[in-house]
Amino acid sequence: MCARMMGDMSCSVQTLGRVVCSRKEPTDDNWDKESCVIELDAAMVQPEATLGLDGFSHIEVIYVFDRVDEAKVCRGARHPRGRTDWPLTGILAQRAKDRPNRLGVTVCRLVAVDGLRITVSGLDAIDGTPVLDIKPYLQEFGPRGEHRQPAWATELMKDYWS
Amino acid sequence: MCARMMGDMSCSVQTLGRVVCSRKEPTDDNWDKESCVIELDAAMVQPEATLGLDGFSHIEVIYVFDRVDEAKVCRGARHPRGRTDWPLTGILAQRAKDRPNRLGVTVCRLVAVDGLRITVSGLDAIDGTPVLDIKPYLQEFGPRGEHRQPAWATELMKDYWS
Repeated sequence: MCARMMGDMSCSVQTLGRVVCSRKEPTDDNWDKESCVIELDAAMVQPEATLGLDGFSHIEVIYVFDRVDEAKVCRGARHPRGRTDWPLTGILAQRAKDRPNRLGVTVCRLVAVDGLRITVSGLDAIDGTPVLDIKPYLQEFGPRGEHRQPAWATELMKDYWS
Repeated sequence: MCARMMGDMSCSVQTLGRVVCSRKEPTDDNWDKESCVIELDAAMVQPEATLGLDGFSHIEVIYVFDRVDEAKVCRGARHPRGRTDWPLTGILAQRAKDRPNRLGVTVCRLVAVDGLRITVSGLDAIDGTPVLDIKPYLQEFGPRGEHRQPAWATELMKDYWS
């Protein structure tokens, strides 16, 4: 529910399930080595909610960086990963976790679907992370037109998945 | 804030801004023809929050399908667009708007950044849509490994952007 009353900008969303994996601490790199299970809650979605998901090679997961202290969320600019040799960058121009609403979105490889248990690889979320949505990845939802990004972003991603 | 108490699966998120565009009704296709402005709220983010965003050609927008009646959200399976010639498909295996949490995620082309006013093209959201997050699109966040999707999904997308 999204309130539209003056001064109230809050929406309520529900956790549909949680990530179960071996990584317990939010470290930066090597996420494609991770395999994890998303355990969906039968109180939130029916078993048929994943019907046909196995026809897709990849899914997009929307989750919450819930271990980030809300008081430490950045609403202005910061250096990515604290690296002062990289430019001072707005929080909405980077994908850091200490962002307003603490939402993460990642495309990961679907390994198996067993009812409300979804096994994936390359999801950059730690054990216990609340999942708000799962969408199939359609190639048509990639960027349309020529792509461009700054050098610091490419450098930051060097070991992110590998 | 995400409650972890028994039986309470809700999180609170805030609207960071709204979409301003000419499309007032949620029709299905031709979204790349749309140009719109995301107006961020100065009470939610500082003007520096978009610093450096113009170094990216594309952004990813997380938003709420707030015109969907919450009572009509699907938590099981349905035919995409009601097309019974397409397979009965779980709501998490399609990107339909009447989904739990009513969240949308779309990569669109960045046209201009002017402080907290961001002009984009190809955002499939109607006028007034609440925006929860904006992230830069990094090519490394695309799918890793070979991609596969069912025929109905490719057919559904035929005129989605064009």
